[in-house]
Amino acid sequence: MRMTQTFVPVLKESPADAEIISHKLALRAGLIRQTAAGIYAWLPLGFRVLKKIEAIVRREQDRAGGAELLMPTVQSADLWQRSGRYDAYGPEMLRFEDRHGRNMLYGPTNEEMLTELFMSAAASYRDLPKMFYHIQWKFRDERRPRFGVMRGREFLMKDAYSFDVDEEGLRRSYDSQFEAYLRTFAALGLKAVPVRAPTGPIGGDLSHEFHVLADTGESAIYYDAALEDISIDDPEAVAKLSATYAMEEEEHEKVADCPVPADRLLKRRGIEVGHIFAFGSKYTNGMGYSVQGRDGEQVHPLMGSYGIGVSRLFGAIIEACHDEAGIVWPRQVAPYQVGIINLRQGDEACDAACEQLYGQLTDAGVEALYDDRNDRGGAKFATMDLIGLPWQLIVGPKGVSAGTIEVKNRATGERADLSPEDALARVAA
Amino acid sequence: MRMTQTFVPVLKESPADAEIISHKLALRAGLIRQTAAGIYAWLPLGFRVLKKIEAIVRREQDRAGGAELLMPTVQSADLWQRSGRYDAYGPEMLRFEDRHGRNMLYGPTNEEMLTELFMSAAASYRDLPKMFYHIQWKFRDERRPRFGVMRGREFLMKDAYSFDVDEEGLRRSYDSQFEAYLRTFAALGLKAVPVRAPTGPIGGDLSHEFHVLADTGESAIYYDAALEDISIDDPEAVAKLSATYAMEEEEHEKVADCPVPADRLLKRRGIEVGHIFAFGSKYTNGMGYSVQGRDGEQVHPLMGSYGIGVSRLFGAIIEACHDEAGIVWPRQVAPYQVGIINLRQGDEACDAACEQLYGQLTDAGVEALYDDRNDRGGAKFATMDLIGLPWQLIVGPKGVSAGTIEVKNRATGERADLSPEDALARVAA
Repeated sequence: MRMTQTFVPVLKESPADAEIISHKLALRAGLIRQTAAGIYAWLPLGFRVLKKIEAIVRREQDRAGGAELLMPTVQSADLWQRSGRYDAYGPEMLRFEDRHGRNMLYGPTNEEMLTELFMSAAASYRDLPKMFYHIQWKFRDERRPRFGVMRGREFLMKDAYSFDVDEEGLRRSYDSQFEAYLRTFAALGLKAVPVRAPTGPIGGDLSHEFHVLADTGESAIYYDAALEDISIDDPEAVAKLSATYAMEEEEHEKVADCPVPADRLLKRRGIEVGHIFAFGSKYTNGMGYSVQGRDGEQVHPLMGSYGIGVSRLFGAIIEACHDEAGIVWPRQVAPYQVGIINLRQGDEACDAACEQLYGQLTDAGVEALYDDRNDRGGAKFATMDLIGLPWQLIVGPKGVSAGTIEVKNRATGERADLSPEDALARVAA
Repeated sequence: MRMTQTFVPVLKESPADAEIISHKLALRAGLIRQTAAGIYAWLPLGFRVLKKIEAIVRREQDRAGGAELLMPTVQSADLWQRSGRYDAYGPEMLRFEDRHGRNMLYGPTNEEMLTELFMSAAASYRDLPKMFYHIQWKFRDERRPRFGVMRGREFLMKDAYSFDVDEEGLRRSYDSQFEAYLRTFAALGLKAVPVRAPTGPIGGDLSHEFHVLADTGESAIYYDAALEDISIDDPEAVAKLSATYAMEEEEHEKVADCPVPADRLLKRRGIEVGHIFAFGSKYTNGMGYSVQGRDGEQVHPLMGSYGIGVSRLFGAIIEACHDEAGIVWPRQVAPYQVGIINLRQGDEACDAACEQLYGQLTDAGVEALYDDRNDRGGAKFATMDLIGLPWQLIVGPKGVSAGTIEVKNRATGERADLSPEDALARVAA
């Protein structure tokens, strides 16, 4: 993509209301813009990152056996009255009437709706187990939205729901999502810690939160250093991680006798990006749904729900991956892999060299962003560092006459003057 | 995908409130479910079709030079007060207050928001031309939603917006979208007719609607038969089509002297699936935005907007592509390319033959849906015809012992008994 064809409105200054680094950088790099309190538009570069995060989440949900569907954003209040949550849910729920005066709401989550969709068609234990997920915009009318897309009001979430006939099945579903979460965060280039969580208003007795480690994280977590040695490729990873100590500060402080020796107890800051629950028959029972069990009796299927904050991950990744100069995107979610900087736009030789590089990268299937604006070199360097693509190809008159291009690795800062062929090989590797 | 792993709740009877064939078939085939009046959940098979339509729309928007972004569903009323449309828009606009009493709305379209997003960052004619698009859920609170997803309240739409400094540029942008629309509908396997349209409340003086031809279409259109001979691969296609007579009935009847000879004037039924407008400076001027022009003067950029009803297309395709037995999906948007019918689930040889076929198709990258349920052959035939995948592979005890598989083409009804190798080659072609 050529910079002149897309829209990257970088800002020199951070807007005053941006409190945390991910919010500042996302605004400065022209990735998002606020359109109302806690509500954001995803500009072209930010949108590409969001789609890449979404694609990785989807891939791991598919691998876990989830069937993807899509539920609408607007829900009927009736549904929530039947589960008893309509009155229980606080002012975070955005409620309104439609033109006929019917009570509606913008869904903050979908337990009720999916229970109704699936259970109204399920008759027998043979229709189970089943795992569904969708990736959809949701709304929570936060009293004080802040931290950019990390705590926005309109946010993108992956929520999955499992239905099983017995506890053993529920545990299998829960563990398959647990593993999917480990794979998802690893594929995003993040370090995530599963923390045993209190179950709260969703109910049930088994729950984990997943925290991405970042020095600027909102919460403190305590965990056994042994946790860092467990690989997701270990077939026992879920069992080992579930058994390894990890708690949020507030919960940790309630533990009278921490089983982890002091020299192995780590304290790190984290950002919650996922939360999974096994809550059993709360909704199937509450909403009056059952299936015929194996012995002919009626049973209320046992459910779990499994959320990942997709738009929140966007912020969490920036919190975990940035430096003084700007964002340092992990390769997996970078909006483009390579940025081409033309130091003398309008110079025939520089333009030709850039066009050739851009064409070759495009032909090779390497996503490239070509800064073809009429701007000073210094401004282009700063913009490209801010945007944070993994590689930069810097084309100037000196290099062009010497037959070289400067290749810069954004993460390490390493630079090398290479022939165009070697430069292409380096960034495409 | 195995039928037992996904969720395809087919219905024997059409729900009484489904008036048109696409609505009946989409419900019966388990593609969608209504969750509130005019609001639908997209079940796994329907969701796959929707995503494929979306992907084709996206590809052609990218080709037309559009930069994709994503604007939120919830908008501030302020924005619409500034353009003057807040009061003008009728009860179709879903309005509500947030917890702080601020007036908000669920966006029915995005002219105001994108004008603000882009124009607040554009300073000069050098920042133009620019074309943006997004594919996002929108809401129109129809008084009487009906026809399933063809006229739902929450619907998925692609809307694009162009900004140019002069009329010539606007016309170029308009024509590039016109061409993108022709390519989009052709790629979807549809016959679409561009009809000159009155501009209505969006204003401006150039507008076309695109109607998909279907015998069950909601509107009658009159057009010159010559239109059917114009290929989109003709570089002059846009100019020729714009100059060829095509009108909706209501407009046609106002034409005193139709220029098309009676023997060339066709009357067909159509479904409106796209609408493009060149409306000039209505919003930039109305909202007080300008850029510096080529000669230093301030100019209000000229805009166009370009909509495609993505979820509406889902219904329109079914209207155009069905028969007595069910849906006949065009290959390009079919949820899967091949359905495998196991006539004797539990029979060792049949199960093994089906598993092998399923594995081979999956390995070859051919999307297959394997009906592995315990059900009678007759029910499986009816379900597969209803769902409408392009090919069926029918595996029964007789064929398996003879070393053959029955291959059925859903559209033509042609059947052949082939060796497994030939069957795979046939459906993968």
